[in-house]
Amino acid sequence: MKIDGKQMRTIWVESDGTGAGIIDQTHLPHRFATVRLATLEDAARAIKTMQVRGAPLIGAAAAYGVWLALRADQSDEALERSYSTLIATRPTAINLKWALDEMLAAVRNRPRAERAEAALRRANEIAEEDVVINQAIGRHGLELIEEVAAKKRGERVNVLTHCNAGWLATVDWGTATAPIYLAHDKGLPIHVFADETRPRNQGASLTAWELGHHGVPHTVIPDNTGGHLMQHGLVDMVIVGTDRVTAQGDVCNKIGTYLKALAAHDNGVPFYVALPSPTIDFSVSDGLTEIPIEQRAADEVATMTGKTADGRIETVQIVPDGSPVANYAFDVTPARLVTGLITERGVLAANRAALAQAFPERAEVRPKSARKVS
Amino acid sequence: MKIDGKQMRTIWVESDGTGAGIIDQTHLPHRFATVRLATLEDAARAIKTMQVRGAPLIGAAAAYGVWLALRADQSDEALERSYSTLIATRPTAINLKWALDEMLAAVRNRPRAERAEAALRRANEIAEEDVVINQAIGRHGLELIEEVAAKKRGERVNVLTHCNAGWLATVDWGTATAPIYLAHDKGLPIHVFADETRPRNQGASLTAWELGHHGVPHTVIPDNTGGHLMQHGLVDMVIVGTDRVTAQGDVCNKIGTYLKALAAHDNGVPFYVALPSPTIDFSVSDGLTEIPIEQRAADEVATMTGKTADGRIETVQIVPDGSPVANYAFDVTPARLVTGLITERGVLAANRAALAQAFPERAEVRPKSARKVS
Repeated sequence: MKIDGKQMRTIWVESDGTGAGIIDQTHLPHRFATVRLATLEDAARAIKTMQVRGAPLIGAAAAYGVWLALRADQSDEALERSYSTLIATRPTAINLKWALDEMLAAVRNRPRAERAEAALRRANEIAEEDVVINQAIGRHGLELIEEVAAKKRGERVNVLTHCNAGWLATVDWGTATAPIYLAHDKGLPIHVFADETRPRNQGASLTAWELGHHGVPHTVIPDNTGGHLMQHGLVDMVIVGTDRVTAQGDVCNKIGTYLKALAAHDNGVPFYVALPSPTIDFSVSDGLTEIPIEQRAADEVATMTGKTADGRIETVQIVPDGSPVANYAFDVTPARLVTGLITERGVLAANRAALAQAFPERAEVRPKSARKVS
Repeated sequence: MKIDGKQMRTIWVESDGTGAGIIDQTHLPHRFATVRLATLEDAARAIKTMQVRGAPLIGAAAAYGVWLALRADQSDEALERSYSTLIATRPTAINLKWALDEMLAAVRNRPRAERAEAALRRANEIAEEDVVINQAIGRHGLELIEEVAAKKRGERVNVLTHCNAGWLATVDWGTATAPIYLAHDKGLPIHVFADETRPRNQGASLTAWELGHHGVPHTVIPDNTGGHLMQHGLVDMVIVGTDRVTAQGDVCNKIGTYLKALAAHDNGVPFYVALPSPTIDFSVSDGLTEIPIEQRAADEVATMTGKTADGRIETVQIVPDGSPVANYAFDVTPARLVTGLITERGVLAANRAALAQAFPERAEVRPKSARKVS
């Protein structure tokens, strides 16, 4: 998408062909900086330290990481080492393993001389596939926005979103944001309420940043606000992303999503979830009982990082000394609260039959032990 | 309640009888400091700058403010000036006007020589009445906690609360916290999940602070977390305070309360609201349409204040430059989501008949234009 008029992606091959470039997301929203990844270690560090984050972008970054490893050393050992190094960076991200398996399949059994080039080709394809999937999600979601816009006859369409399922979480377009960017670029009067999304504030620091720099009208709100807005008719639809959707349509997403789904349901506001199909986990059925929820570090809740009046970045403690905190990263929204799943193959009902019909090639039952979401 | 073993109230008459003492709440949770109020101007500034806050405490502070004014000047003009100065500090707080009217009635028509003493006596009574009301709320709420505790046979009872309806918002005990302190002091194994309550974080900065210093086990959670906890049986009951309850039992409280009420309802968790009866506004019926919701300053959302690693208090900006924010202060929880109203006269159903029966002397219809809540 655009940053102040200039077209960008979150990851790219540098023009000299010897490295990959990324936006360093750890400095957003207060500083925009790019970083050059030249080695496997650079790529692993970028994922581990969350310079890149978001499941699809993590997958693409890992793919380029394998390429960078093979530029230096084309041996089987180097290939294996790149796999084990990268898989350990965010061990529970579903797209990471998928991308690494794809890279392995594309490279192994090839002559060493061809491996780096083959790796680059497949990494580029993985990145491009993500863009194409998100564009398809965008087109299907756009139809939903256009229906609302037609009813509102020129009044602005208000979309509420939670966390960051934006282009910064993917290679481009984003999932929940793809319909929004398409609508905006087409001239529809769209406005986004961005939940700040405590504790890591990705809604304020990433979603608001990317919407603002692309030029999409938006308002940052505390996570507490969405219910009140819906009670007063100020939200036309909710669109969120997801970390995992189960075979029956339960949606695991950033903590707090469930509360917005309840409010949407209570006020007759449509609640949509945008996702690329690899996010569907057909091996899991009941999201509430089968998906263990990761607990993260206390300091994400106990502190807040931002910019001081004189431009320094500071971290401040916001809870009393000695008060324990809990930091559950995700919650599960039961399928009954989901109006529709916006996928690259269309908008689906959140139930087993609809998902299996749309993705028959993936829907055969594959029993698997429950995995942590990342 | 106790601060590290020492019994305290939020406001008191200094031992030399020439001023009132308060806890300066603007420095909490990072610094504990008390302030001496010696003049009307001191009292007005303390309310205006939120050194004291919370409707009942504001009322008591204003009452002592009238006393301080009359210590210096016993004239009718001084009395009127104290009223107009104090009413302007937080013009929309319902208890402020009530307390000032009480002071006026207690003092006017008396000889000047008696006025200061009469004012002190009535201010002390107002403070004491608040304590007595909260103790009664505590006793009724304690019965609810004891019922849960009996079923859990020694396992800890988990109460979720939102914002600060604690002793810091009153003279002592608090409203939502009164049953909690009574249960803890009685030896029941009680534990509180304190919503941090963005944007002003009163849950983290005040509720967690006062619970911690009294010794009540608690955990600070982001506002997004309560739904997940309730889905997993980790909350036995919700108890919140309120800024205004309508004649039909709708509850206006800090923004985000409605979302917790929805989650409680969806998971069969009892949702209680603790309130002193002056908080009931019998002139208003439908909270959603009749109570206008105050919008507050953007910087409450855009910035966060806390303590740096080296102990300085800093304010940091946490939204991108140029991103608009919205800051609605309250929301309305419809009566249908409220399990019970814990008042000084018992636990009432949230409906017109129950409220009118419990408070017949206040329930006659008094039509009045809708007022802003503070």
